[in-house]
Amino acid sequence: MKKKITIAIDAMGGENAPKKNIEGLNIFLKNNKSKDDFIIHLYGNKKIIDQEIAKFNIKNDLVKVINAEGVVSDEETPLTAIKNSKNTSMWNSIKDQIDGDADISLSAGNTGVLFVISKMILKMMKEVSRPALAGLWPSKKGMSVVLDLGANIECNEKNLVDFSEMGAALYKSIFPDQKPRVALLNIGSEEIKGTEILKKAYSELKGLSNDENFIFNGYIEGNKIMNGESNVIVTDGFTGNIALKTAEGTAKFLTDSLKKSLSENIFSKLSIVFSYFSLKKFKSKLDPRKYNGAIFLGLNGPVVKSHGSTDAIGFYYSIDLCYRIIKGNLMHQLKNNLSHLDVKD
Amino acid sequence: MKKKITIAIDAMGGENAPKKNIEGLNIFLKNNKSKDDFIIHLYGNKKIIDQEIAKFNIKNDLVKVINAEGVVSDEETPLTAIKNSKNTSMWNSIKDQIDGDADISLSAGNTGVLFVISKMILKMMKEVSRPALAGLWPSKKGMSVVLDLGANIECNEKNLVDFSEMGAALYKSIFPDQKPRVALLNIGSEEIKGTEILKKAYSELKGLSNDENFIFNGYIEGNKIMNGESNVIVTDGFTGNIALKTAEGTAKFLTDSLKKSLSENIFSKLSIVFSYFSLKKFKSKLDPRKYNGAIFLGLNGPVVKSHGSTDAIGFYYSIDLCYRIIKGNLMHQLKNNLSHLDVKD
Repeated sequence: MKKKITIAIDAMGGENAPKKNIEGLNIFLKNNKSKDDFIIHLYGNKKIIDQEIAKFNIKNDLVKVINAEGVVSDEETPLTAIKNSKNTSMWNSIKDQIDGDADISLSAGNTGVLFVISKMILKMMKEVSRPALAGLWPSKKGMSVVLDLGANIECNEKNLVDFSEMGAALYKSIFPDQKPRVALLNIGSEEIKGTEILKKAYSELKGLSNDENFIFNGYIEGNKIMNGESNVIVTDGFTGNIALKTAEGTAKFLTDSLKKSLSENIFSKLSIVFSYFSLKKFKSKLDPRKYNGAIFLGLNGPVVKSHGSTDAIGFYYSIDLCYRIIKGNLMHQLKNNLSHLDVKD
Repeated sequence: MKKKITIAIDAMGGENAPKKNIEGLNIFLKNNKSKDDFIIHLYGNKKIIDQEIAKFNIKNDLVKVINAEGVVSDEETPLTAIKNSKNTSMWNSIKDQIDGDADISLSAGNTGVLFVISKMILKMMKEVSRPALAGLWPSKKGMSVVLDLGANIECNEKNLVDFSEMGAALYKSIFPDQKPRVALLNIGSEEIKGTEILKKAYSELKGLSNDENFIFNGYIEGNKIMNGESNVIVTDGFTGNIALKTAEGTAKFLTDSLKKSLSENIFSKLSIVFSYFSLKKFKSKLDPRKYNGAIFLGLNGPVVKSHGSTDAIGFYYSIDLCYRIIKGNLMHQLKNNLSHLDVKD
């Protein structure tokens, strides 16, 4: 019998936990009724979790609840996390990849602590210079991967090349039929633009461009991130974080302005009636909950971070992401892509 | 008699020049009919410019056409610009600040060349460590200034402090009644976040926070740029350029998606009829042409760069910007703000 995909979930992390976590799980189970190739490990206060589970018609053989008394608070800092987080639901859901059967861990809890204890428990892959945080962005042609989003404020060329290989592996695990097109985020598309580090990374990636792992598209500017020509956008954590948040802020500014405009008089309000389904589709396509889940790459096991403030639907999408990237064999893809770099050294 | 505000315009720079430049000028003149406190110097091929001027009812005493034979081509590189650009319309419109009466120069031509020859002709202000390129961003509360947008790929803390003072001076010249609130772009709002350079700039700016020139708002994250709480957002040229272009790309992605949604069926098309005026207002508020014009700060005279591809309306807004910042006494504000730093040294 083939081993089942095992997802270890920190049921106590994030706002409205464990309610939204279990509700999100229930959506996942309903949407995957026909499948029996996975099992969910839920970590946290068993009594409370069982109460939440009882609200839904959840089959016992797909979900295993494992008691963990402690919860990582939002106030906990990465500095004291290792001492204070042992045996919490977060800690144990990561540890499950070492002790148990888990293929991947998911939490909506404290981000800084999650990174520190993930690194501590799972340890860095020997092939990697630094781990990176990758996110999903909507694009004209579907979805892209952007990394690093803030795990590394400053990066050298070796880090950026590693991120390219890791991002390509992630993209391939989510979209197995596509060959990823990788680009470096820069302030111009000409080869002479940018910092020395970018230029060195460019020339290394160009050397890898006959690589079977990905196609190197060169530099990409900020205004092209969402045009879908490149699927993996690579940058340092400072720039990636600024770009991600600027995009979020711009989207919020625009949709708020639009909402205000469409509710300002009776005619525009009436127009919403006629455009209801179209606007709903528009909203649904861009729903940030669909892109919920940042993937911590470069450790000996994948960890997914859900937004703490997301709701059950957002949490569902991050469970779905866990399922997809394990189904797509992320760790195998990562090792394959990175081994390729090793040979080059 | 008080000296008139003199704006030197490169009439030959940008797409569809000089047609769009003269058309933009005509809009400016129509919108400022009641004023007589300015004069426009137009540089370029006099014969062609006069032909364009003849199409409109433009008063001779407000516009002076000064012949310049050469034009800086889009293919010219900054490296050879100083040799090849002498006596072009761009060169002479900047030189007008030295030889003539001009208070400010405006061009929609080759950006790289404009920077190099502006620096060469006008020279850096002695108080400034590096010049910066500032842009205007729409915000919830009106308009903000963001700098640097790409003149300096890497910056130290001294540069960032200079940019803060210069950005505050620019904001004050545009909005004389407001005390600018300055913030440093970073990946978190806590004092411990970010690079060493940012931390040093933060502590210097905090020391200046009782400054009469501006209020220091601390760090700002990318998603807050447009919320209007800070009016001057300071960053290095690499990050600023990425943020600006990412915002542009996100806005384009969203408006394209919206357009597509609203034209997908007969009902949604019908809705446009009802929301016509509201959508028009929405569009107008966010019209990028209103924010056309990046200001090159830190030289002994201001230079404004219009988007090359903008139309007559966009060019009009950049002429209007020139008028406003000279009316608001930009150079005086700059010297005042920067002298303040000198005293601190």
